[in-house]
Amino acid sequence: MYGRYTQELGVYAKEEAARLRDGGGLRRSTSVRSRSAELLEYEKDPCAKCHVCTSRCQKFLISRVGEDWIFLILLGLVMALVSWVMDYAIAFCQQAQKWMYGGLNSNMLLQYLAWVTYPVVLITFSAGFTQILAPQAVGSGIPEMKTILRGVVLKEYLTFKTFVAKVIGLTCALGSGMPLGKEGPFVHVASLCAALLSKFMAALFGGIYMNELRNTEMLSAACAVGVGCCFAAPIGGVLFSIEVTSTFFAVRNYWRGFFAATFSAFIFRVLAVWNQDEETITALFKTRFRLDFPFDLQELPAFAILGIACGFGGALFVYLNRLIVECMRKQKTINKFLLRKRLVFPAMVTLIISTLTFPPGFGQFMAGQLTQHESLVALLDNRTWSRQGVAEEFDYISHSHAWKHPQVNVFITLIFFIVMKFWMSAVATTMPVPCGAFMPVFLIGAAFGRLVGETMAVMFPDGIHADGSVYPIVPGGYAVVGAAALSGAVTHTVSTAVIVFELTGQISHILPVMIAVILANAVAQSLQPSLYDSIIRIKKLPYLPELGMGHHEKYNVRVEDIMVRDVRYITLSSSYRDVQEVLLIGQLKTLALVESTDSMILLGSIERSQLQSLLSLQLGPSRRLDHLRRHAKDNDTHTLDTHTHLSNLGTMDNPLSPPCTHTYSNSTSNSARHGVRFVVSVAEVSRIHPTHWLRVLNPLPQIAEWEEQQLDEPVDFNNCKIDPAPFQLVERTSLHKTHTIFSLLGLDHAYVTSTGRLVGVVSLRELRKAIEGSVTVTGVKVRPPLASFRDSGNNTTNVSDVTELHKLWNRHRGLSLPRDPTPETQNKSKLSTHTLSHSNTYLFTNIQNNIPKT
Amino acid sequence: MYGRYTQELGVYAKEEAARLRDGGGLRRSTSVRSRSAELLEYEKDPCAKCHVCTSRCQKFLISRVGEDWIFLILLGLVMALVSWVMDYAIAFCQQAQKWMYGGLNSNMLLQYLAWVTYPVVLITFSAGFTQILAPQAVGSGIPEMKTILRGVVLKEYLTFKTFVAKVIGLTCALGSGMPLGKEGPFVHVASLCAALLSKFMAALFGGIYMNELRNTEMLSAACAVGVGCCFAAPIGGVLFSIEVTSTFFAVRNYWRGFFAATFSAFIFRVLAVWNQDEETITALFKTRFRLDFPFDLQELPAFAILGIACGFGGALFVYLNRLIVECMRKQKTINKFLLRKRLVFPAMVTLIISTLTFPPGFGQFMAGQLTQHESLVALLDNRTWSRQGVAEEFDYISHSHAWKHPQVNVFITLIFFIVMKFWMSAVATTMPVPCGAFMPVFLIGAAFGRLVGETMAVMFPDGIHADGSVYPIVPGGYAVVGAAALSGAVTHTVSTAVIVFELTGQISHILPVMIAVILANAVAQSLQPSLYDSIIRIKKLPYLPELGMGHHEKYNVRVEDIMVRDVRYITLSSSYRDVQEVLLIGQLKTLALVESTDSMILLGSIERSQLQSLLSLQLGPSRRLDHLRRHAKDNDTHTLDTHTHLSNLGTMDNPLSPPCTHTYSNSTSNSARHGVRFVVSVAEVSRIHPTHWLRVLNPLPQIAEWEEQQLDEPVDFNNCKIDPAPFQLVERTSLHKTHTIFSLLGLDHAYVTSTGRLVGVVSLRELRKAIEGSVTVTGVKVRPPLASFRDSGNNTTNVSDVTELHKLWNRHRGLSLPRDPTPETQNKSKLSTHTLSHSNTYLFTNIQNNIPKT
Repeated sequence: MYGRYTQELGVYAKEEAARLRDGGGLRRSTSVRSRSAELLEYEKDPCAKCHVCTSRCQKFLISRVGEDWIFLILLGLVMALVSWVMDYAIAFCQQAQKWMYGGLNSNMLLQYLAWVTYPVVLITFSAGFTQILAPQAVGSGIPEMKTILRGVVLKEYLTFKTFVAKVIGLTCALGSGMPLGKEGPFVHVASLCAALLSKFMAALFGGIYMNELRNTEMLSAACAVGVGCCFAAPIGGVLFSIEVTSTFFAVRNYWRGFFAATFSAFIFRVLAVWNQDEETITALFKTRFRLDFPFDLQELPAFAILGIACGFGGALFVYLNRLIVECMRKQKTINKFLLRKRLVFPAMVTLIISTLTFPPGFGQFMAGQLTQHESLVALLDNRTWSRQGVAEEFDYISHSHAWKHPQVNVFITLIFFIVMKFWMSAVATTMPVPCGAFMPVFLIGAAFGRLVGETMAVMFPDGIHADGSVYPIVPGGYAVVGAAALSGAVTHTVSTAVIVFELTGQISHILPVMIAVILANAVAQSLQPSLYDSIIRIKKLPYLPELGMGHHEKYNVRVEDIMVRDVRYITLSSSYRDVQEVLLIGQLKTLALVESTDSMILLGSIERSQLQSLLSLQLGPSRRLDHLRRHAKDNDTHTLDTHTHLSNLGTMDNPLSPPCTHTYSNSTSNSARHGVRFVVSVAEVSRIHPTHWLRVLNPLPQIAEWEEQQLDEPVDFNNCKIDPAPFQLVERTSLHKTHTIFSLLGLDHAYVTSTGRLVGVVSLRELRKAIEGSVTVTGVKVRPPLASFRDSGNNTTNVSDVTELHKLWNRHRGLSLPRDPTPETQNKSKLSTHTLSHSNTYLFTNIQNNIPKT
Repeated sequence: MYGRYTQELGVYAKEEAARLRDGGGLRRSTSVRSRSAELLEYEKDPCAKCHVCTSRCQKFLISRVGEDWIFLILLGLVMALVSWVMDYAIAFCQQAQKWMYGGLNSNMLLQYLAWVTYPVVLITFSAGFTQILAPQAVGSGIPEMKTILRGVVLKEYLTFKTFVAKVIGLTCALGSGMPLGKEGPFVHVASLCAALLSKFMAALFGGIYMNELRNTEMLSAACAVGVGCCFAAPIGGVLFSIEVTSTFFAVRNYWRGFFAATFSAFIFRVLAVWNQDEETITALFKTRFRLDFPFDLQELPAFAILGIACGFGGALFVYLNRLIVECMRKQKTINKFLLRKRLVFPAMVTLIISTLTFPPGFGQFMAGQLTQHESLVALLDNRTWSRQGVAEEFDYISHSHAWKHPQVNVFITLIFFIVMKFWMSAVATTMPVPCGAFMPVFLIGAAFGRLVGETMAVMFPDGIHADGSVYPIVPGGYAVVGAAALSGAVTHTVSTAVIVFELTGQISHILPVMIAVILANAVAQSLQPSLYDSIIRIKKLPYLPELGMGHHEKYNVRVEDIMVRDVRYITLSSSYRDVQEVLLIGQLKTLALVESTDSMILLGSIERSQLQSLLSLQLGPSRRLDHLRRHAKDNDTHTLDTHTHLSNLGTMDNPLSPPCTHTYSNSTSNSARHGVRFVVSVAEVSRIHPTHWLRVLNPLPQIAEWEEQQLDEPVDFNNCKIDPAPFQLVERTSLHKTHTIFSLLGLDHAYVTSTGRLVGVVSLRELRKAIEGSVTVTGVKVRPPLASFRDSGNNTTNVSDVTELHKLWNRHRGLSLPRDPTPETQNKSKLSTHTLSHSNTYLFTNIQNNIPKT
């Protein structure tokens, strides 16, 4: 009974064990099953996926294009509705708070309580609801989407529960008036929506919607929809989503994003028109800057300085955000307390922030009573707020009165607003609620831009333009530039420029915006990772970091420096015991198949699950029964135990007996699915107490003996699926190129070969370690001694190389010509790990176009 | 003297041959050399490239990022200057024509002659100049850039001559006032500029600018600059250039394009300000549509219809353009005539077009006197030209009077303009001058949009809006939408939407523009290839066509259906004779290296040039001399001929004798460079008259004998660079996936393997054939008999597969366990071509992210 259990067999084994032995065996076997079931959850995925792919690819592709349109239209429609309803609900929440606050204006204390309680309740509800329903809904969602689009399966991030938690949690969080954003979560919501829509349509119209690869494609369109319908910015949405989620982008999938985002933005704005909020479709934050002379050429230095300052500000924001999270984690007492009382932290943060923004208190100096939307509309106003340093001519529009304080200059208000909002946003976005940071940062950027603009307006009251006509400076233009630059710096994107044009409905400031955004990006990228990459690092998501712009040492690191030389492999002549051992030691999902230990010629790779099913086939119940029956026939004198055992097994062998036949047919048709379970349990158990386990579950010594025999047989690869062309690199491939290839092809691991011979393996883990820990890589630690000799032997074939090559060549000649095993062939695996390395830079000289260049 | 010649040796051989034999041998040898020199031109490239890459990669990468900025700034600056100066020159040319035309208004005939002669002269000059200096400068340049960025080396397209020809030719062509565009050629000019700048900086600052791979990266930034500074549209420029030139795009190179294009657009507009043409930096074709209510929701159907119509129009334009070219090619008499008199065709076309646009003639009905710029400004006017069908309220701005005709309705003028310009543009862009089609198409689109807009204005004189306020329809908005839609349909891009926003400086019509562009693209893409792909086909450029949206049969074709099964390969035990034979037969640039003919295990690939240098080393002059000297010592009785020969050779063997040592040191240090030449000549000659050649140039029978001996020796791979990991596919890889991988990695060819064994090869040629000739592929012709059985054996391992696998497995067991050659191993290459095919769909299941999905 060497670990072959379906549920029925398991039940049987338990009963059997209970009858034969004491309770100890029983307890052990159950605990084993539950652990193996856990492992199974992990292992089932890749296997199941492959089956879906191979069998459904064909069908789905044929009818694909037509359904893409329908799918994208549906996605756009649903997301526009969600966005609109959510906006409506948020506006309602905020209105309710204002109404409460306004209604209680007789009593300051009551007013304060109302002002503070409302957001605390909402945020606490949001945090609690998310925590209970789906903790995956917390945070922005862009880092997770980036990881998912990279090819990593984070299944629980795309469930219906997460969708509900995210939408309701986000609505409450934004309704509270905290400095939180909608964009990031909306990317996640749109992806969730796409995933669910796929499932729904699969249930409705059959399997063509089940293809996993297609879903990935749709997810990247969904990200565009998320941004698109959040800001009614289709073009910016597509570009932003490409920039934040992709490394390489297939231009032929471009239209999908554009189509879906446009449709979504259109419906989103049409809903506003139908609801009589707007007269027609216009931009979300429409500006009215003058068209004929938007800015003077001599203002450009000011815009450039604004951009550079925003670059530093963006880097600071990312740093601050990470610092807060890391501080809380490192402080063990805080950490423990927060882990026990999860709702205390968001409630506390909300309390502090809402206290500080309480309009009759501190809030009066920082326009505390305004919502984000109102603040932004005010900041993008085309009128100048201050002249000569005082706010006399301040022509108040509906919301702008909040910016005016009888005693305090408008500059002080702005500075106060910027400073307070800066740290508030950085803190607020660490709360465990669904929230993004884009909009708060955008707002801070706009305020900073407005500050610079107002300063310019004071310095040059009649504008800078020298010739006759007077064109006063437009501080609103600076606000637009600042908003784009700061959000670009925080997210490391250039497309925020396009988003502001679409948000404001004016493109007249295109050049200042572009200049500021590029400068901000240059500064921020050289100082800090983007906010999303920072979160990826904090959350330790399995993502390949980008190669920074300034890290030149990466070009000197080669695959041979970082690869794992001790590769787990199977040869064509391996025995089942070898397979078992390899499975027990290694944790890689696939294992290399080489010709023989001598030659090490890489033939392909085999998935772990395939090997597990091979092993379970070899030691399977039918073969086991065959053996037992043969044994029974040969040997008439057997104990009562064996007899009972056999008779029980005999009933199961009966083809009409449902549990067994059902089980077995399953494990052949679904190939690995059920087979995995057994072997996993074997593996698991053997790891705990190999011998004890054998004794416990193998009452018959002859079975154990038989198993030993079986394990010594060479593996029969007939029923095993082999990937005959796994991705290969050579030792001299640079880290930079390896990174490119990995991210281009979404690889998980690659084998390192030298003229066909396997010499190492590189997985994402090594690559990530090498990129992140580049300091150690440049030192002597990681580099092998040979690395330092590299540069000298670049051009000409040096002597040692020739000798090594000669040996290799001789060996091969010896092998293929006289065809007898000379003593030289015995040590062939030792030589020429480095033989051809000087020529290996040849790899991919034909990859000219897309792969950037070592 | 078996084919080892430098120039000096060649001269020597000629003299020798002349002395020894009659003139026939001499003539033969010269003709051989010239042909081999031709071949050398072709062969030199890949080899030289590799050397540059490998040796310079490291140096260049270290100091790379900083210099990128400098390079991009310089590129932007130069291109902005070129663009501005060219615009100035074009405006001057057009002004001159107007002045001539205006000055002669007393005599209609003279006026006509002036109107017609001027463009004919300019176009003829442009065509002649381009023809003489650099015929590569003809046409748009985007198709060529697309091909170059795909990895194909079209060297002559990036020379200084081409630059001069393109700039001057383009200026003249555009100055003539023909319906030609600036955008496409400007992409080419910018790329030329980038290539030349690289060379210049390489000459100035050393080799770091010589890296070919880096240049490709810079070229894609240059394409963005080209569009960016042509239209002062940085964002649209980047997106447009990505869409028309790339298949896969690396997001991390994004900033390069944005930075350079922004800088270039900025300088371009700053020059206009400094020249006092403009007061400040604004859009090129600034519009002044009202901001508060740009369009009504109910106008959207009209915009959608406009988009669909533009889609059909775009497809028609591409078709018409191709039809004209193909007609001229097929009509042999026309073709012959045109080939002889190359300038007649452009002159004729110009004559016809300018006659038809002669303002007092037909031109009066189609605003013939306006330049493209003036027409576009007029068409984008925010006023309505017609109310109630007559042009009474037509409020004339400077240029618009051309649109008004006393007798003829403005609608007639517009229709006439559209129809005439449509075919004129299609014809004009086939002229052999540097010219693009974007701007003419853009203009036609604007006119068509204006037509629809004016019609709408007539139909709804008070606007559609139902509620109180009257918002009249803005026909200029329709013109913007039409321009974006038609140019998007012709080029198959979505980013024309962004270009129009940047051109007009207004983004208020974003939703109509996006909807129309997407619809136009959907229609046009389903009917015709893009204009650039059409030109690629016409010019038969080596480009991989895109997989169309509707061609589902591609998903059913697999690599095994299209691969070449008869692969040329070399084994580790090959003799030099085998290498020679392979080189003579095959034309592939690289050859597969397998372990042995039996095993066929792929070890790597070797470049043709490497093999050629191997061969030339083996039969090299020094070894030849060694042999001769040894032979001379052994054998004292030799003829006079031999003596003369030897003494001559003796002088060359002297290490101080410059020609020979020079030659030989060259051929070792530069490895293949000079070596190639010899072997090519051998190959070439042998193809003509192998035996005769040997007789002619090998006066000594013992030399021939020696050569035969040398050829029979097994190859020494010591001095040969081997690419140890060429790209591999498996038989079951679908055409769709193959296409993706080829375009993603810019591959030239890929080997098809089955568990390490080489079974075929696929090159771009097969792939292209399969994609273009998909009709035959779905039939029985191309598909092998096995193909039809495929779908049945998808899920389970069928019997025949198992048997085959079993054989394979047995063979390997037999090989690796007892290690002796059994008879079974003799026929191993025959089996299992198909053995593992059912599992080969495993390939790249981990490529989830970027590769779209079979």
